[in-house]
Amino acid sequence: MSDFVMRLAVREDVPALVDMLTDDFLGKSREDLNNLAPYYAAFDDMQLDRHNKIYVFEADGLSVAGTLQLIYMQGLSVNACKRAEIEAVRVHKSLRGQGWGKKMFAWAIEKARADGCGILQLTSNKARVDGQRFYEQVGFEQSHVGYKLLL
Amino acid sequence: MSDFVMRLAVREDVPALVDMLTDDFLGKSREDLNNLAPYYAAFDDMQLDRHNKIYVFEADGLSVAGTLQLIYMQGLSVNACKRAEIEAVRVHKSLRGQGWGKKMFAWAIEKARADGCGILQLTSNKARVDGQRFYEQVGFEQSHVGYKLLL
Repeated sequence: MSDFVMRLAVREDVPALVDMLTDDFLGKSREDLNNLAPYYAAFDDMQLDRHNKIYVFEADGLSVAGTLQLIYMQGLSVNACKRAEIEAVRVHKSLRGQGWGKKMFAWAIEKARADGCGILQLTSNKARVDGQRFYEQVGFEQSHVGYKLLL
Repeated sequence: MSDFVMRLAVREDVPALVDMLTDDFLGKSREDLNNLAPYYAAFDDMQLDRHNKIYVFEADGLSVAGTLQLIYMQGLSVNACKRAEIEAVRVHKSLRGQGWGKKMFAWAIEKARADGCGILQLTSNKARVDGQRFYEQVGFEQSHVGYKLLL
Protein backbone atom coordinates (compact mmCIF):
# COMPACT_ATOMS: atom_id res chain seq x y z
CA MET A 1 0.00 0.00 0.00
CA SER A 2 2.95 2.35 0.52
CA ASP A 3 2.98 3.37 -3.13
CA PHE A 4 -0.73 4.13 -3.23
CA VAL A 5 -1.59 7.80 -2.76
CA MET A 6 -5.02 9.42 -2.77
CA ARG A 7 -5.00 13.18 -3.18
CA LEU A 8 -7.72 15.84 -3.06
CA ALA A 9 -9.16 16.54 -6.48
CA VAL A 10 -8.29 19.95 -7.92
CA ARG A 11 -10.26 22.09 -10.38
CA GLU A 12 -8.11 20.91 -13.29
CA ASP A 13 -9.36 17.34 -12.62
CA VAL A 14 -12.99 18.23 -13.38
CA PRO A 15 -13.00 17.22 -17.09
CA ALA A 16 -11.34 13.88 -16.30
CA LEU A 17 -13.75 13.29 -13.40
CA VAL A 18 -16.80 13.98 -15.58
CA ASP A 19 -15.34 11.79 -18.31
CA MET A 20 -15.06 8.95 -15.80
CA LEU A 21 -18.58 9.50 -14.45
CA THR A 22 -19.87 9.38 -18.03
CA ASP A 23 -17.99 6.19 -18.87
CA ASP A 24 -20.46 4.07 -16.93
CA PHE A 25 -23.62 2.18 -17.89
CA LEU A 26 -25.76 4.38 -15.64
CA GLY A 27 -23.74 7.56 -15.98
CA LYS A 28 -23.65 7.68 -19.76
CA SER A 29 -27.28 8.82 -19.96
CA ARG A 30 -27.16 11.32 -17.10
CA GLU A 31 -23.93 13.27 -17.58
CA ASP A 32 -23.26 16.00 -20.18
CA LEU A 33 -19.64 16.26 -21.29
CA ASN A 34 -20.60 19.08 -23.67
CA ASN A 35 -21.41 21.49 -20.86
CA LEU A 36 -18.94 21.38 -18.00
CA ALA A 37 -20.11 24.65 -16.41
CA PRO A 38 -22.42 22.99 -13.83
CA TYR A 39 -19.62 20.61 -12.82
CA TYR A 40 -17.14 23.45 -12.30
CA ALA A 41 -19.74 25.41 -10.31
CA ALA A 42 -20.40 22.38 -8.12
CA PHE A 43 -16.69 21.77 -7.62
CA ASP A 44 -16.16 25.41 -6.60
CA ASP A 45 -19.10 25.21 -4.17
CA MET A 46 -17.61 22.09 -2.59
CA GLN A 47 -14.38 23.93 -1.79
CA LEU A 48 -16.36 25.84 0.85
CA ASP A 49 -17.49 22.63 2.59
CA ARG A 50 -14.86 21.07 4.81
CA HIS A 51 -16.96 17.90 5.26
CA ASN A 52 -17.38 16.99 1.59
CA LYS A 53 -14.33 16.15 -0.51
CA ILE A 54 -13.54 14.40 -3.78
CA TYR A 55 -10.35 12.33 -3.83
CA VAL A 56 -8.48 10.83 -6.76
CA PHE A 57 -5.49 8.61 -7.33
CA GLU A 58 -2.99 8.72 -10.16
CA ALA A 59 -1.73 5.59 -11.90
CA ASP A 60 -0.50 4.33 -15.22
CA GLY A 61 0.04 7.84 -16.61
CA LEU A 62 -3.54 8.91 -15.76
CA SER A 63 -3.85 11.96 -13.52
CA VAL A 64 -7.32 10.68 -12.55
CA ALA A 65 -7.16 6.89 -12.48
CA GLY A 66 -9.90 6.52 -9.88
CA THR A 67 -12.05 8.60 -7.59
CA LEU A 68 -14.40 8.58 -4.66
CA GLN A 69 -16.18 11.24 -2.64
CA LEU A 70 -16.20 11.23 1.17
CA ILE A 71 -18.82 13.20 3.07
CA TYR A 72 -18.65 13.43 6.87
CA MET A 73 -22.02 13.71 8.59
CA GLN A 74 -22.22 14.37 12.30
CA GLY A 75 -25.47 13.31 13.93
CA LEU A 76 -26.95 12.36 17.29
CA SER A 77 -28.02 8.77 16.60
CA VAL A 78 -25.92 5.73 17.50
CA ASN A 79 -24.38 7.51 20.49
CA ALA A 80 -23.63 10.67 18.49
CA CYS A 81 -21.61 8.75 15.95
CA LYS A 82 -20.01 10.67 13.09
CA ARG A 83 -20.64 8.91 9.79
CA ALA A 84 -18.74 8.97 6.54
CA GLU A 85 -20.73 8.53 3.36
CA ILE A 86 -19.03 7.39 0.17
CA GLU A 87 -20.43 8.60 -3.15
CA ALA A 88 -19.36 8.57 -6.80
CA VAL A 89 -16.88 5.69 -6.80
CA ARG A 90 -15.18 5.06 -10.14
CA VAL A 91 -12.04 3.35 -11.46
CA HIS A 92 -10.86 4.21 -14.97
CA LYS A 93 -12.01 1.62 -17.49
CA SER A 94 -8.44 0.76 -18.47
CA LEU A 95 -7.58 -0.15 -14.88
CA ARG A 96 -10.52 -2.24 -13.73
CA GLY A 97 -10.07 -5.71 -12.30
CA GLN A 98 -6.55 -4.94 -11.04
CA GLY A 99 -7.26 -4.30 -7.36
CA TRP A 100 -7.30 -0.49 -7.46
CA GLY A 101 -10.80 -0.35 -5.99
CA LYS A 102 -9.63 -2.35 -2.98
CA LYS A 103 -6.73 0.04 -2.48
CA MET A 104 -9.08 3.02 -2.65
CA PHE A 105 -11.41 1.45 -0.10
CA ALA A 106 -8.61 0.44 2.26
CA TRP A 107 -7.52 4.07 2.13
CA ALA A 108 -11.07 5.40 2.66
CA ILE A 109 -11.64 3.11 5.65
CA GLU A 110 -8.43 4.30 7.30
CA LYS A 111 -9.11 7.94 6.44
CA ALA A 112 -12.65 7.91 7.88
CA ARG A 113 -11.47 6.11 11.02
CA ALA A 114 -8.57 8.52 11.52
CA ASP A 115 -10.97 11.45 11.15
CA GLY A 116 -13.17 10.12 13.96
CA CYS A 117 -15.98 8.44 12.07
CA GLY A 118 -17.64 5.36 13.56
CA ILE A 119 -19.70 4.27 10.56
CA LEU A 120 -18.81 4.21 6.88
CA GLN A 121 -21.86 3.97 4.63
CA LEU A 122 -22.81 3.94 0.98
CA THR A 123 -25.63 2.94 -1.30
CA SER A 124 -25.39 1.11 -4.59
CA ASN A 125 -27.92 1.06 -7.39
CA LYS A 126 -29.56 -2.39 -7.48
CA ALA A 127 -28.32 -2.76 -11.08
CA ARG A 128 -24.66 -2.60 -9.97
CA VAL A 129 -24.34 -6.29 -9.13
CA ASP A 130 -20.55 -6.35 -9.54
CA GLY A 131 -20.21 -3.37 -7.25
CA GLN A 132 -22.25 -5.09 -4.57
CA ARG A 133 -20.03 -8.16 -4.61
CA PHE A 134 -17.06 -5.82 -4.25
CA TYR A 135 -18.50 -3.92 -1.27
CA GLU A 136 -19.07 -7.16 0.59
CA GLN A 137 -15.50 -8.27 -0.19
CA VAL A 138 -14.09 -5.12 1.38
CA GLY A 139 -16.10 -5.55 4.59
CA PHE A 140 -19.47 -3.85 4.16
CA GLU A 141 -22.70 -5.41 5.36
CA GLN A 142 -25.82 -4.99 3.24
CA SER A 143 -28.01 -4.03 6.19
CA HIS A 144 -30.18 -1.33 4.60
CA VAL A 145 -32.36 -0.56 1.63
CA GLY A 146 -31.78 2.69 -0.21
CA TYR A 147 -34.45 5.11 -1.40
CA LYS A 148 -34.29 8.01 -3.85
CA LEU A 149 -36.86 10.64 -4.73
CA LEU A 150 -36.19 12.93 -7.69
CA LEU A 151 -37.11 16.52 -6.84
CA MET B 1 -50.44 21.96 6.20
CA SER B 2 -50.54 25.64 7.12
CA ASP B 3 -50.43 24.87 10.83
CA PHE B 4 -47.43 22.53 10.51
CA VAL B 5 -44.10 24.16 11.35
CA MET B 6 -40.67 22.56 11.36
CA ARG B 7 -37.99 24.52 13.21
CA LEU B 8 -34.26 24.07 13.64
CA ALA B 9 -33.42 22.06 16.74
CA VAL B 10 -31.78 24.05 19.53
CA ARG B 11 -29.36 22.85 22.22
CA GLU B 12 -32.18 22.60 24.78
CA ASP B 13 -33.83 19.96 22.56
CA VAL B 14 -30.93 17.52 22.92
CA PRO B 15 -32.34 15.49 25.86
CA ALA B 16 -35.73 15.13 24.15
CA LEU B 17 -34.03 14.19 20.87
CA VAL B 18 -31.92 11.50 22.53
CA ASP B 19 -34.98 10.25 24.40
CA MET B 20 -36.79 9.85 21.08
CA LEU B 21 -33.80 8.13 19.44
CA THR B 22 -33.71 5.71 22.37
CA ASP B 23 -37.43 4.97 22.24
CA ASP B 24 -36.98 2.73 19.20
CA PHE B 25 -36.46 -0.99 18.74
CA LEU B 26 -33.03 -0.46 17.18
CA GLY B 27 -32.11 2.67 19.12
CA LYS B 28 -32.77 1.34 22.58
CA SER B 29 -29.58 -0.77 22.54
CA ARG B 30 -27.31 1.83 20.97
CA GLU B 31 -28.10 5.10 22.76
CA ASP B 32 -27.04 6.12 26.28
CA LEU B 33 -29.44 8.45 28.06
CA ASN B 34 -27.18 8.41 31.13
CA ASN B 35 -24.37 10.26 29.38
CA LEU B 36 -25.55 13.13 27.21
CA ALA B 37 -22.10 14.73 26.86
CA PRO B 38 -21.32 13.12 23.46
CA TYR B 39 -24.72 14.22 22.15
CA TYR B 40 -24.18 17.83 23.24
CA ALA B 41 -20.68 17.82 21.73
CA ALA B 42 -22.06 16.48 18.45
CA PHE B 43 -24.85 19.05 18.45
CA ASP B 44 -22.36 21.88 19.03
CA ASP B 45 -20.13 20.58 16.23
CA MET B 46 -23.10 20.53 13.85
CA GLN B 47 -23.75 24.22 14.45
CA LEU B 48 -20.55 24.88 12.45
CA ASP B 49 -21.82 22.95 9.42
CA ARG B 50 -24.29 24.87 7.28
CA HIS B 51 -25.12 21.74 5.26
CA ASN B 52 -26.19 19.48 8.13
CA LYS B 53 -29.20 20.42 10.25
CA ILE B 54 -31.61 18.74 12.66
CA TYR B 55 -35.23 19.87 12.48
CA VAL B 56 -38.08 19.25 14.88
CA PHE B 57 -41.78 19.97 15.07
CA GLU B 58 -43.87 20.75 18.14
CA ALA B 59 -47.29 19.24 18.71
CA ASP B 60 -49.64 18.14 21.44
CA GLY B 61 -47.67 19.95 24.16
CA LEU B 62 -44.39 18.28 23.16
CA SER B 63 -41.54 20.62 22.26
CA VAL B 64 -40.02 17.76 20.25
CA ALA B 65 -42.88 15.77 18.74
CA GLY B 66 -40.87 14.59 15.75
CA THR B 67 -37.51 15.08 14.11
CA LEU B 68 -35.45 14.50 11.03
CA GLN B 69 -31.96 15.48 9.93
CA LEU B 70 -31.27 16.94 6.48
CA ILE B 71 -27.75 16.88 5.05
CA TYR B 72 -26.99 18.61 1.74
CA MET B 73 -24.26 16.99 -0.31
CA GLN B 74 -22.96 18.67 -3.44
CA GLY B 75 -21.31 16.34 -5.93
CA LEU B 76 -20.41 16.04 -9.58
CA SER B 77 -22.44 12.99 -10.58
CA VAL B 78 -25.88 13.17 -12.20
CA ASN B 79 -25.04 16.45 -13.91
CA ALA B 80 -23.60 17.98 -10.74
CA CYS B 81 -26.81 17.38 -8.82
CA LYS B 82 -26.96 18.52 -5.19
CA ARG B 83 -28.44 15.77 -3.02
CA ALA B 84 -30.25 15.93 0.29
CA GLU B 85 -29.84 12.98 2.63
CA ILE B 86 -32.38 12.33 5.36
CA GLU B 87 -31.18 10.69 8.57
CA ALA B 88 -32.58 10.04 12.05
CA VAL B 89 -36.31 10.22 11.37
CA ARG B 90 -38.51 9.81 14.46
CA VAL B 91 -42.06 10.62 15.55
CA HIS B 92 -42.86 10.59 19.26
CA LYS B 93 -44.45 7.32 20.30
CA SER B 94 -47.62 9.06 21.51
CA LEU B 95 -48.18 10.60 18.06
CA ARG B 96 -47.56 7.71 15.68
CA GLY B 97 -50.13 6.68 13.11
CA GLN B 98 -51.66 10.15 12.92
CA GLY B 99 -50.05 11.43 9.72
CA TRP B 100 -47.27 13.49 11.30
CA GLY B 101 -44.57 11.60 9.39
CA LYS B 102 -46.26 12.50 6.10
CA LYS B 103 -46.34 16.15 7.13
CA MET B 104 -42.63 16.04 8.01
CA PHE B 105 -41.78 14.46 4.67
CA ALA B 106 -43.93 16.87 2.66
CA TRP B 107 -42.02 19.65 4.41
CA ALA B 108 -38.61 18.01 3.79
CA ILE B 109 -39.36 17.47 0.10
CA GLU B 110 -40.31 21.13 -0.34
CA LYS B 111 -37.36 22.33 1.74
CA ALA B 112 -34.79 20.31 -0.22
CA ARG B 113 -36.30 21.37 -3.55
CA ALA B 114 -36.36 25.04 -2.52
CA ASP B 115 -32.71 24.79 -1.48
CA GLY B 116 -31.72 23.55 -4.94
CA CYS B 117 -31.44 19.80 -4.40
CA GLY B 118 -32.32 17.44 -7.26
CA ILE B 119 -32.31 14.16 -5.36
CA LEU B 120 -33.61 13.33 -1.90
CA GLN B 121 -32.18 10.09 -0.52
CA LEU B 122 -32.26 7.95 2.59
CA THR B 123 -31.55 4.44 3.73
CA SER B 124 -33.64 2.31 6.02
CA ASN B 125 -32.53 -0.68 8.07
CA LYS B 126 -33.98 -3.83 6.50
CA ALA B 127 -35.73 -4.53 9.82
CA ARG B 128 -37.81 -1.33 9.54
CA VAL B 129 -40.57 -2.85 7.41
CA ASP B 130 -43.18 -0.28 8.44
CA GLY B 131 -40.81 2.54 7.61
CA GLN B 132 -40.23 1.13 4.16
CA ARG B 133 -43.95 1.03 3.38
CA PHE B 134 -44.12 4.64 4.54
CA TYR B 135 -41.24 5.82 2.32
CA GLU B 136 -42.89 4.31 -0.74
CA GLN B 137 -46.19 5.98 0.19
CA VAL B 138 -44.53 9.39 0.27
CA GLY B 139 -42.94 8.94 -3.16
CA PHE B 140 -39.56 7.28 -2.72
CA GLU B 141 -38.36 4.50 -5.00
CA GLN B 142 -36.38 1.64 -3.51
CA SER B 143 -33.69 1.75 -6.19
CA HIS B 144 -30.59 1.05 -4.10
CA VAL B 145 -29.13 -1.28 -1.52
CA GLY B 146 -27.47 0.24 1.52
CA TYR B 147 -24.17 -0.83 3.06
CA LYS B 148 -22.62 -0.05 6.43
CA LEU B 149 -19.16 -0.78 7.77
CA LEU B 150 -18.46 -0.18 11.47
CA LEU B 151 -15.09 1.49 11.95
